[in-house]
Amino acid sequence: MRIDIISVVPDLLKSPFEASILKRSIEKGLVSVHIHNLRDYSSNNYKQIDDYQFGGGAGMVMMIEPIDKCISALKAERDYDEVIYMTPDGATLTQGIANELSLKGNIIILCGHYKGVDQRVRDHFITREISIGDYVLSGGELGAAVLCDAVIRLIPGVLGNETSALTDSFQDNLLAPPIYTRPANYKGWKVPEILTSGNTPKIDQWREDEAYKRTEEKRPDLLED
Amino acid sequence: MRIDIISVVPDLLKSPFEASILKRSIEKGLVSVHIHNLRDYSSNNYKQIDDYQFGGGAGMVMMIEPIDKCISALKAERDYDEVIYMTPDGATLTQGIANELSLKGNIIILCGHYKGVDQRVRDHFITREISIGDYVLSGGELGAAVLCDAVIRLIPGVLGNETSALTDSFQDNLLAPPIYTRPANYKGWKVPEILTSGNTPKIDQWREDEAYKRTEEKRPDLLED
Repeated sequence: MRIDIISVVPDLLKSPFEASILKRSIEKGLVSVHIHNLRDYSSNNYKQIDDYQFGGGAGMVMMIEPIDKCISALKAERDYDEVIYMTPDGATLTQGIANELSLKGNIIILCGHYKGVDQRVRDHFITREISIGDYVLSGGELGAAVLCDAVIRLIPGVLGNETSALTDSFQDNLLAPPIYTRPANYKGWKVPEILTSGNTPKIDQWREDEAYKRTEEKRPDLLED
Repeated sequence: MRIDIISVVPDLLKSPFEASILKRSIEKGLVSVHIHNLRDYSSNNYKQIDDYQFGGGAGMVMMIEPIDKCISALKAERDYDEVIYMTPDGATLTQGIANELSLKGNIIILCGHYKGVDQRVRDHFITREISIGDYVLSGGELGAAVLCDAVIRLIPGVLGNETSALTDSFQDNLLAPPIYTRPANYKGWKVPEILTSGNTPKIDQWREDEAYKRTEEKRPDLLED
């Protein structure tokens, strides 16, 4: 999988891809991530990439021309399955969307910044708009990093233990059950006895019951589908 | 505002706080962010902070002792309004929660990693569990960065233009209307004429209508409340 990220603050994206699972998946050659500075595609000497809104109002708007030039340069090199725009009014990211995107080949992710991009970018270049949630961030960069993390960890071979992602929350519309590790007794707070019983069928049943209980209590909406 | 973040991969959090709005708000003294490496609070020479699950199963669990030591050390220095745990089964972050947290004084954010933390940490130390959305990430670090960004940009003085955050999506349960900037005609794609008319009351009305139209089309759920 190849991911190209277009950003006006590419530095912000550095450390997430230089640590932990994302770094290891890049080193293993399972995915390549390329970050492009939108200012490199500006048409003037000031490296301008934003301008005032037509009609007035607070906040700057990202111009269409540099974005067009950057996306066109990438598309001239290879085909892309999706050109994604990170925006709070896009479709809300779910585990299902992450699963779907983990099967794609080449993806472009455009990070919005300031008030967002000129609407004509969305009308003519974007194939998919994604939001990571109902809140506003100072830019799309963290959203892009979140999307990449959610997607990349699903690529086979990325997680050390192949079964690990399958027992995550949401994969079966259930939240994960409570988990415990040593010590069994910490300052008088003990782990549930069943977990130290060695009775695997009973432990599995307990975990399933707890997963349902937790989901019913915290997120009944997940059980409605 | 002071934010203390506890993480097992503190390097991952570096660049988000060294760029853009977060960097400037730290430089202005409007917020201070302190990142703590959980391994510094390990009780053994291997800097161990995770261990196998009681009852078996894939994935490691973050141990209670290092977390207890780190949180207790912070609490000995000052009072905290919230000890937040980033987890996919927490309450889903909304703009309302971000608004609320932006009024707090001192906050601790604990980043989950691997399969998550020992349940006893959640039962005894955490005052609030937050998820940034219905998807699983390789750790809570990006979630913590997202939460900080959403919250910090709301602190008065952080955004250049005080009115800017008030016209964002979600602040009035409406998505933002389409925005445009120069050139007015790009490869034959033109901006709506109304926006270049100079008729401010009509432009305001158009924006309100478009905001409703977009919300009805993309996120009718926001209009139901």
